[in-house]
Amino acid sequence: MATKSLERLIDEFNRLPGIGRKSAARLAFHVLEMNEIQVDRFIEALKDVKTSVKKCKTCGNFSESDYCEICSDPIRDKKIICVVEDSRDIIPLEKTNKYRGTYHVLNGKIAPLNGITPDKLNIKSLLERVAKEDVEEVIIALDPDLEGETTALYLTKLLKHFDIKVTKIASGIPMGGNIEYADTATITRALEGRTEI
Amino acid sequence: MATKSLERLIDEFNRLPGIGRKSAARLAFHVLEMNEIQVDRFIEALKDVKTSVKKCKTCGNFSESDYCEICSDPIRDKKIICVVEDSRDIIPLEKTNKYRGTYHVLNGKIAPLNGITPDKLNIKSLLERVAKEDVEEVIIALDPDLEGETTALYLTKLLKHFDIKVTKIASGIPMGGNIEYADTATITRALEGRTEI
Repeated sequence: MATKSLERLIDEFNRLPGIGRKSAARLAFHVLEMNEIQVDRFIEALKDVKTSVKKCKTCGNFSESDYCEICSDPIRDKKIICVVEDSRDIIPLEKTNKYRGTYHVLNGKIAPLNGITPDKLNIKSLLERVAKEDVEEVIIALDPDLEGETTALYLTKLLKHFDIKVTKIASGIPMGGNIEYADTATITRALEGRTEI
Repeated sequence: MATKSLERLIDEFNRLPGIGRKSAARLAFHVLEMNEIQVDRFIEALKDVKTSVKKCKTCGNFSESDYCEICSDPIRDKKIICVVEDSRDIIPLEKTNKYRGTYHVLNGKIAPLNGITPDKLNIKSLLERVAKEDVEEVIIALDPDLEGETTALYLTKLLKHFDIKVTKIASGIPMGGNIEYADTATITRALEGRTEI
């Protein structure tokens, strides 16, 4: 039977996304088996993240200084801005090692039913960047779902007023995926987005 | 892209059992979105568990005082001891609300290949309890795997010297399970353990 403080720790783990009651119990019991140094290191990491991580004043990405590593990197191409839903999405894009431009973190997608109207997103700061900086292209990299598409459309309309190229990342059959099992919407998109070889 | 302190928190989550790199990243990003109070509460819960949880002097279960809630509960039947591998196993047994005896936590199963010999387990304290207290039955509730069966056999041999009943929880087709898909060992056990209706 779990003691009161153990019960409390299980509750805390249970509050984290994707951690059910059973996983939370397993994690809490694991903490009990960790030594003092390990627990302290974990606690320090939790504290640190809250005290040292803020948002980049340019793009809204998480950063430990006023401007994030990408925005302050002189090698990155400031003429290209890739718009993402949140900081998390930057990780897979960076992993490709193919993109050398900068980012802009919207902090969500337009979803009026959930109360996320355009004014709740970092759209104003994006327009300011485009207006002030020497931007040539804005790549919209949002999930190809209803909210993502709506947001992309909304942004495109706003960005049209500037003399820049607005693009959207391709969507279609995923690499290694199977046409046989792909849904109609994906196949339609793959057909529409076909490129010459 | 993840900052250094975020990277460190991801590493810490990644160290927990069953948390892969991607889940760890999701959890760390979630912590960033938690407010100060929530993070502090989480940290307090982690600290508390390490400072206030010790082991029950009677049964070895986690406890916040010298003796655990179950051992110090006057209503629990001290004449029956249920032997479990670790404290975690007590939770599902308690959930049944069917068992009113006490427990004894072995802290593992005999596994000589992994260096877990009988002297590493809380077997001595179990024998002492049986010798000193007025015990009538010891129920062995260990996983029905190789180590569990070995440990059960070993304990049965030792407990035979006392004038008590030694039982083992039943194993067989799980409730809602399917005979068609059950493995031979489980079916064999289910047949052997058949009861009259």
